[in-house]
Amino acid sequence: MIKNGWGLDLEFPLLDRRPKPRNIGLTMVLDKGLGLGETRDLLEIAGEYIDFLKLSFGTSALYSPYVLHKKIELVRSYGIDIYPGGTFLEVAILQGKLDQFLERARELGFSCIEVSDGTIEMDYEMRKRAIQKAVDLGFKVLTEIGKKDKNEVFQVDEMVKLLNKDLENGAYRVIVEGRESGTVGIYDSKGDADQNILEKLLYGAPSSEVIIWEAPLKKQQVHLIKTLGNNVNLGNIPTSDILAVEALRNGLRGDTFKEALYRYQNPVFYT
Amino acid sequence: MIKNGWGLDLEFPLLDRRPKPRNIGLTMVLDKGLGLGETRDLLEIAGEYIDFLKLSFGTSALYSPYVLHKKIELVRSYGIDIYPGGTFLEVAILQGKLDQFLERARELGFSCIEVSDGTIEMDYEMRKRAIQKAVDLGFKVLTEIGKKDKNEVFQVDEMVKLLNKDLENGAYRVIVEGRESGTVGIYDSKGDADQNILEKLLYGAPSSEVIIWEAPLKKQQVHLIKTLGNNVNLGNIPTSDILAVEALRNGLRGDTFKEALYRYQNPVFYT
Amino acid sequence: MIKNGWGLDLEFPLLDRRPKPRNIGLTMVLDKGLGLGETRDLLEIAGEYIDFLKLSFGTSALYSPYVLHKKIELVRSYGIDIYPGGTFLEVAILQGKLDQFLERARELGFSCIEVSDGTIEMDYEMRKRAIQKAVDLGFKVLTEIGKKDKNEVFQVDEMVKLLNKDLENGAYRVIVEGRESGTVGIYDSKGDADQNILEKLLYGAPSSEVIIWEAPLKKQQVHLIKTLGNNVNLGNIPTSDILAVEALRNGLRGDTFKEALYRYQNPVFYT
Repeated sequence: MIKNGWGLDLEFPLLDRRPKPRNIGLTMVLDKGLGLGETRDLLEIAGEYIDFLKLSFGTSALYSPYVLHKKIELVRSYGIDIYPGGTFLEVAILQGKLDQFLERARELGFSCIEVSDGTIEMDYEMRKRAIQKAVDLGFKVLTEIGKKDKNEVFQVDEMVKLLNKDLENGAYRVIVEGRESGTVGIYDSKGDADQNILEKLLYGAPSSEVIIWEAPLKKQQVHLIKTLGNNVNLGNIPTSDILAVEALRNGLRGDTFKEALYRYQNPVFYT
Repeated sequence: MIKNGWGLDLEFPLLDRRPKPRNIGLTMVLDKGLGLGETRDLLEIAGEYIDFLKLSFGTSALYSPYVLHKKIELVRSYGIDIYPGGTFLEVAILQGKLDQFLERARELGFSCIEVSDGTIEMDYEMRKRAIQKAVDLGFKVLTEIGKKDKNEVFQVDEMVKLLNKDLENGAYRVIVEGRESGTVGIYDSKGDADQNILEKLLYGAPSSEVIIWEAPLKKQQVHLIKTLGNNVNLGNIPTSDILAVEALRNGLRGDTFKEALYRYQNPVFYT
Repeated sequence: MIKNGWGLDLEFPLLDRRPKPRNIGLTMVLDKGLGLGETRDLLEIAGEYIDFLKLSFGTSALYSPYVLHKKIELVRSYGIDIYPGGTFLEVAILQGKLDQFLERARELGFSCIEVSDGTIEMDYEMRKRAIQKAVDLGFKVLTEIGKKDKNEVFQVDEMVKLLNKDLENGAYRVIVEGRESGTVGIYDSKGDADQNILEKLLYGAPSSEVIIWEAPLKKQQVHLIKTLGNNVNLGNIPTSDILAVEALRNGLRGDTFKEALYRYQNPVFYT
């Protein structure tokens, strides 16, 4: 039984969430450009609930060297992996500068790299090389599957194949695309998850733990927590919603309270 | 005639808003997890326009003891009542720990308690006891009416009954549920207010001043200010919108400017 | 070839964006009430990408004198023009206090004035006088065209006429109304731009550079950058999206990457 921040003995919620570093129940945060003060502030209040922080798109190219250096240092001091958005890596690859990109990322202090092909066409060999090079340099590698356009049936099989290949090639986790808007990938234009695609991905993966689901909208977070459990890996969480998501995971919010109560009353299924 | 921040003599707007502490025109803010620096910052610029600050859902359980202590102290130093979201109280009640919850809330420095039944089923006697115990311990009590599901006709009568009972039992104000999304309670799925329900609630209440309307969306704030006046009590205001809401109240924004002008030109109705 | 914040030699993106002070590719930001710390923070990380900062609606009237003074000083120290929302000027005009308003704005350190008629009816002579007085006092003047209600055909001609008159009278740029919501002016209720109105405005203006398009929503920013180029002037950008918009301009985001690549591969059209 974990004590909550009040120092109040409650038997639940806060039931089966793990302290960092953890391998499940990961939260990946989308940072669209927080300043240093805001970052410091966010980490003080919510650092415990963040596992990965992404400097979205290519925004890290727009930081001044001083701010970039300080921010990376700050985020890592909380045991959080930080990485530049995948678009920037794609630009580097397109210009034949993958090696320089990875070297520079390491010098700057990034601990993680995202390999995606949302923007450029990348053949499988290139993708494999990018993953392996990053792994060799000591990065945790996240790959991304699912194009930024609407999904079609045949794509799911492709995604499953790619997911397994990426893991074989050394990826730590595979992210299922949902974008900042939450209206592509497994989601329709209203942001509702396509349960059919979701299940095909789960069924095709070696375990549910290898997937991080981009879920920027609250209804997506609720849906995934309800269907896949409170330790589902969630990504693209807005910086303003980190505690709200952690409250959802813990049943500290109306939407998922009943599930937390059920887990408490039926512990046999959850140990 | 109040001087505005510019030190410019204008005859209106800024017409009939009261300084704190005030009993009408209350603004209740929904805090989803601001860090200490952001809180300090927000209070410096907007503290004068905040009456209540709610640490949303059960998020306060996720704060570290240090941050929780500091935040409460900071908020109260601006004459603002602060309270943990209702979900957390419901969890405590479900576990038979109401007394410990209230004791601990007092020790932590909370000045207000919300009594709701959005998550658990709570019988009337339990609700009454919770309100009275909190009042006895010196808390300002806000209760919440309106389930988190879609309203039906019969519920309005129930809500009116509960509203009056809560006040009799010592509640300071009664909050009409709108959630963070603004799509339940008196609002439809598009966030538009159901004028019929709204009027039934007003008609059944001892006065309009006892109600705080959750109104997270701008169109809801505009509608309530236009129909119930600029000193209507508003709740679940996002932290980023406090000055925008105060501008609406004062006619400093296009949407409500004409109403402010009318009040100025027809002072007899407003004194 | 500009070096990016990483110190990595890439041939593009970051192709043809200019450093400040610039006359095209302007970004105007809508500030709904950032505190001093947040402002400082924002400027450190994104100050280079902001040209104008508007204290939205009449919110500046709600600031304390200390905060207002400090904020103006801070923003200007980054070479950014700062101004109070148009509503406040309209209030002053309605009360016959235009001169005092402008004097006071200058004393407070504002460097820019917005002249609009979104709220009050203002005849052409009054509008002209307001522009010219502000210009005479040394302000940069932005005017706004397009009523806050739905556009009709005849209005476009009126807008074109006004746009040209405003420039003749000394306005620095003319803002096309989109509001904070992005659902009026050239946008329909879903926030999609009416290409027909957009073209009529462009066709009627002396050059595309004189227009600042209010574009609070991402799809509007993408549309305008794709159709009018990465150095289109954009307004009402939320404070949280400044780096994201700059990434769109530079092709550092999937949505506009292909356009940046095309510009790079076809430099003749862009020099």
